[in-house]
Amino acid sequence: MTYDPNNIFAKILRGEIPSHRVYEDDKVLAFLDIMPRATGHTLVIPKAPSRNLLDVAPEDLDAVMAVAQRIARAQLGVFEAEGITVTQHNEHAGGQEVFHLHVHVIPRRLGVELRPPLSYKEAPEVLAEQAAKLKAALQG
Amino acid sequence: MTYDPNNIFAKILRGEIPSHRVYEDDKVLAFLDIMPRATGHTLVIPKAPSRNLLDVAPEDLDAVMAVAQRIARAQLGVFEAEGITVTQHNEHAGGQEVFHLHVHVIPRRLGVELRPPLSYKEAPEVLAEQAAKLKAALQG
Repeated sequence: MTYDPNNIFAKILRGEIPSHRVYEDDKVLAFLDIMPRATGHTLVIPKAPSRNLLDVAPEDLDAVMAVAQRIARAQLGVFEAEGITVTQHNEHAGGQEVFHLHVHVIPRRLGVELRPPLSYKEAPEVLAEQAAKLKAALQG
Repeated sequence: MTYDPNNIFAKILRGEIPSHRVYEDDKVLAFLDIMPRATGHTLVIPKAPSRNLLDVAPEDLDAVMAVAQRIARAQLGVFEAEGITVTQHNEHAGGQEVFHLHVHVIPRRLGVELRPPLSYKEAPEVLAEQAAKLKAALQG
């Protein structure tokens, strides 16, 4: 399996496609999913090229998971979440749609089911407001 | 949120409940889920007490994810998997049932849906054979 540098997340990393960024450091980028399975659904990706869990370098995986943890904690307050669901998909059979490693960090509330994947597109102005709140919470 | 030392995974760590172990080191234990969502469904947990992603220490999270990666790679061969789905649930609202941090590493094949959680109990002799194969692959 190889890495395709023209996948959509690579384009987001290069700034060729806009995204609602919530966190960035030298190894990791986090941004809101434009098709959220729940309010506040965030994606965490390494900046280094990596197809998925099967090929990622240990230091990039560690950095991604550390940010996923920070995002999860921040989501509790910002989105009044009562729990967090984390998913990570590898290869088509594993549910992967974009072939750059990404970890889904999804705020949950009791009794609210996740939307099916790719079933709902959030309005850009809503995403912008949510990203601003989450970014502020992560800096606080 | 606190850690309950009598959760079922704490009992597995202490050897008070049997499990089909596939990997163990000083920080991490991996064993087969007795109610697999797909053949070879493995759980990876830290040995240190941790409720979930929200409270786990960075070094334990890193160790768990490094083992999850090794398990995922080994599952491809042992279970003829075409992909891997990783999930991790936090708090009741996030889908958590046992309150010791655990990462699900689930082998997938194209066109085969995951079983619903807790819907199927695997026979112990089948789990024993699968665990032996996975353990051998991890040592190889």
